[in-house]
Amino acid sequence: MKKPLPFDQAEFAARLAAVKKEMSNREIDFLLLSEPPNQNYLTGYDSLSFYTPQMVIVALSHDEPLWIARFMERSQAMMGTYLADENIRTYPDEYVNSHTGLSAYDVVADIVKELGGETARIGVEMGGYYYSARAHADLVRALPLATFVDADLLVNWIRIVKSPAELVCMRQAGRIADAMIKRGVDMMEPGVRECDIAAAVYYQQIAGTPEFGGSYDSSCLFFGAGERALAPHPTWTDERLPASTTVYMEVHGVRLRYQVNLARTIVVGKPSPAYQKFSEIAVEALNAGLDSVRPGRTCSEVQAAYAQSLARHGYKKEARLGYPQGIGYPPASAERTASLRKGDNTVLQPGMCFHMMAALWLEDKSICITQPFTVTESGYEPLTSTPRALIVK
Amino acid sequence: MKKPLPFDQAEFAARLAAVKKEMSNREIDFLLLSEPPNQNYLTGYDSLSFYTPQMVIVALSHDEPLWIARFMERSQAMMGTYLADENIRTYPDEYVNSHTGLSAYDVVADIVKELGGETARIGVEMGGYYYSARAHADLVRALPLATFVDADLLVNWIRIVKSPAELVCMRQAGRIADAMIKRGVDMMEPGVRECDIAAAVYYQQIAGTPEFGGSYDSSCLFFGAGERALAPHPTWTDERLPASTTVYMEVHGVRLRYQVNLARTIVVGKPSPAYQKFSEIAVEALNAGLDSVRPGRTCSEVQAAYAQSLARHGYKKEARLGYPQGIGYPPASAERTASLRKGDNTVLQPGMCFHMMAALWLEDKSICITQPFTVTESGYEPLTSTPRALIVK
Repeated sequence: MKKPLPFDQAEFAARLAAVKKEMSNREIDFLLLSEPPNQNYLTGYDSLSFYTPQMVIVALSHDEPLWIARFMERSQAMMGTYLADENIRTYPDEYVNSHTGLSAYDVVADIVKELGGETARIGVEMGGYYYSARAHADLVRALPLATFVDADLLVNWIRIVKSPAELVCMRQAGRIADAMIKRGVDMMEPGVRECDIAAAVYYQQIAGTPEFGGSYDSSCLFFGAGERALAPHPTWTDERLPASTTVYMEVHGVRLRYQVNLARTIVVGKPSPAYQKFSEIAVEALNAGLDSVRPGRTCSEVQAAYAQSLARHGYKKEARLGYPQGIGYPPASAERTASLRKGDNTVLQPGMCFHMMAALWLEDKSICITQPFTVTESGYEPLTSTPRALIVK
Repeated sequence: MKKPLPFDQAEFAARLAAVKKEMSNREIDFLLLSEPPNQNYLTGYDSLSFYTPQMVIVALSHDEPLWIARFMERSQAMMGTYLADENIRTYPDEYVNSHTGLSAYDVVADIVKELGGETARIGVEMGGYYYSARAHADLVRALPLATFVDADLLVNWIRIVKSPAELVCMRQAGRIADAMIKRGVDMMEPGVRECDIAAAVYYQQIAGTPEFGGSYDSSCLFFGAGERALAPHPTWTDERLPASTTVYMEVHGVRLRYQVNLARTIVVGKPSPAYQKFSEIAVEALNAGLDSVRPGRTCSEVQAAYAQSLARHGYKKEARLGYPQGIGYPPASAERTASLRKGDNTVLQPGMCFHMMAALWLEDKSICITQPFTVTESGYEPLTSTPRALIVK
């Protein structure tokens, strides 16, 4: 009944060993992982089932992780993880949106006790998307003798460096992102509904390439035409493209949950000379940032190279310049660890992957030409091949 | 710069009045809403920006809600809500994944204080997807004189009853769901890659219909062929459909964020007589459940009608029979309030919308034929028109 996983057992073992080592360093006996990307990283489990409580427990005293979710998800865990049957646990359906006050975290707490964790030091992901205030309150109530420590991002900081097998997925995701941009631009003509352009981009996202298929987004396509292109996270409307407009599009290529983001501004019609010049300034700064990437440099230094280039033309970017990417589940694929921003002294290492999100959203105009990349031994490798330039259609 | 909203101002005013009335009933002075559907319901704001802290504050002492998010989202709030400029607030970018310990919830707390809420009774959504354990800890620290109470689902229980204007969106979402099923089935042929079928379904989801476009999913298409159809939340692979197989597909039609779910089992090839019979039992039970729907009945009574029909054939459904739907944002559109399950004594009212998720996932086989519906004055109105039957392709 087990299905083949995208990574071999040695890779999963290495990931788990790295996590356990860091747990030891921090004197954490039990790590309760609520974040879906971290659950996937350590067990292979891949299903959009985390809208009900779902937890992976890593115990220093226990070889394999334990997986706990709603009873009906068991079949997926049996097929889609390497875990032994006894490490796949469930809670009954009446714990879901219980109208009688049942908490699935009581079931999690019982398993922690079963494993000898009643008085343990327990790490939890305090800032995670799927660790609510109530989840924490319930666990603390159910394990009164345990000590809770914030272990948010413990796994994220390990998976920020991608293995060679993960980089294969990232490059494939990048190829899908390229194809999505191309498909969207191909569709853009005056009179075409925005939703029909977006639909074609979604088609490409899921169909992928003839060699490998794609997967669903951790968020959504961002698409804004005209004034809506001034916002960073717009979506399409039912309106038809006018004869001349500016379109902003951020696409997300996804391969086996590995996600690569890529954004471009497209001018339908003829750009003004001033806007063309503005786009060249944006690309020059993007390239300055990319050229500064190498192992040993800090995120802050990369941002500085970009900002200096931009400042020569009198512009300033208010938001961070980029974020690390990898395994993506809703609502976002950014890893919440390092940022390409002033003062972030994270040192770049080969295998780290970032989206250099060099968008400028100003009061009266915006431009968005970005580059996902991985850090190599000597510099950077782009994960996409769409030219770094304003697209004119 | 304001764009037209899908609902008129009177509708937003009525929603806000209902929420304030319930706040008064519970003696809640300030309601801090972290859930994106609740934020959309009260302000019209629609953007997938809630992966960074985002809050809507309703204060009994303040006419309009206040909206607070990352600085870059301001333009979307200016265009896409009815709120006055002074009620649109932001925090700077360095609060996002801060590496220096900054918390956006300090900014939220400052605004609460500015509005006179330093010692208020403050309602928060303890069980929400976007109210992390750390968010709560930060707010409690920043507002030490306030009293925090759990107001999770306060707004959800109000928006469970849809207005006539909302029902228009739900019916349109249902039409998109029908079109998605049709498009998927049309694509199913031996030798076609699963990802190419899924891509066509996604195309339809976003293109919508010739009259109105669609929007992105709150989760994803569920698609499982063969053994994978035994899991409730599978996704497609790169594999090609064999000459004969069973496919499970749950689609989500979305119109202006209103989501309608619909699922079918499709047999490619010829179903066995036993499986055909099994599907008829499932439909008979589904219809028994639907026929029992009317205002005044409870969720528990509807489930009982379904379960009795199923029991006559020796079957039992372990999971709840259904959940309410409406505005959907990742990771789910189910409203977390009522469930169609034994013991849930929620009384049905006209305008409530549910997905009767009458799937049976058994050890050796599964069948999934479902029906989204709204409660009417005298019974139910189906929100989709795909026939309630096993589909044979």
